[in-house]
Amino acid sequence: MQTVFHLITGDPGGQDTTLTLAENLADDEDVEMDDVVVLAQADGITPLTADGSHEDRVRSLQEKGIAFVACGNTLELRDLTREDLVDGVDVVDSGVTELTLLQSEGYAYIRP
Amino acid sequence: MQTVFHLITGDPGGQDTTLTLAENLADDEDVEMDDVVVLAQADGITPLTADGSHEDRVRSLQEKGIAFVACGNTLELRDLTREDLVDGVDVVDSGVTELTLLQSEGYAYIRP
Amino acid sequence: MQTVFHLITGDPGGQDTTLTLAENLADDEDVEMDDVVVLAQADGITPLTADGSHEDRVRSLQEKGIAFVACGNTLELRDLTREDLVDGVDVVDSGVTELTLLQSEGYAYIRP
Repeated sequence: MQTVFHLITGDPGGQDTTLTLAENLADDEDVEMDDVVVLAQADGITPLTADGSHEDRVRSLQEKGIAFVACGNTLELRDLTREDLVDGVDVVDSGVTELTLLQSEGYAYIRP
Repeated sequence: MQTVFHLITGDPGGQDTTLTLAENLADDEDVEMDDVVVLAQADGITPLTADGSHEDRVRSLQEKGIAFVACGNTLELRDLTREDLVDGVDVVDSGVTELTLLQSEGYAYIRP
Repeated sequence: MQTVFHLITGDPGGQDTTLTLAENLADDEDVEMDDVVVLAQADGITPLTADGSHEDRVRSLQEKGIAFVACGNTLELRDLTREDLVDGVDVVDSGVTELTLLQSEGYAYIRP
């Protein structure tokens, strides 16, 4: 099973919920998860920035096998670079293209 | 056709909209709906609680064949049990696992 | 590839983001997009109304090949008709039925 979480909300509570839900899915021993991806863009990018308050949390989730992906269009629009992100976060050119490609490959889509 | 509505918003207007949209889909005679599911979790759980203001509405929608499912992780986190929910609401261990499984079975996903 | 954007938020920032993301996807030369659809309903209908502030933007996106579809149930509920919408916007009887049908045909779903 493969699932992509769409982290786009700027609401801090919603951002925390997104990370918690990704963790719940990765931790669930009742389902065989091959991939759990968190795709962040627009206002949802902040938890992936290295100066954000979520750095430890993101690193802990990465250790559980959750992949974090940032939208390159969002980075450009906000004058951010890969260096501004938590280590290990992947950058794709376009978040919506990635969401389209992942769903075409069979990923479930969850937008908290 | 099968569709799962993701009821996660804590906004009362958004919660009402979710129920209305599920009803619209179940009522639509132009499409053969085999299953319409409302999966509630996080702040979206409140309309499914028996002391909530939505009890009559949920029961009426159940009579139209709409299935309501609550996330067990959410119940645990909020010290709620099955007895706190409207009669007939199913409980699954993990809402995000259920959303993943349903989509892998071909359910459409709608997040109002 | 085919993608439907679900424009349902009443938040002006979220509405703008939805249009920007649809544009990003249509403009992306790295992916072959056969169809990019923006399905508007509930509070998300306003950018598609002819008296709204988004008329020029919507027309510009239509010229890029993005299709705009409005939910007929929403129009009825708000006493709007096809004539109140930007030229070229399609109207379907039910937005949620359309979202279900499109996903059953393989469209990716993105809810900004």
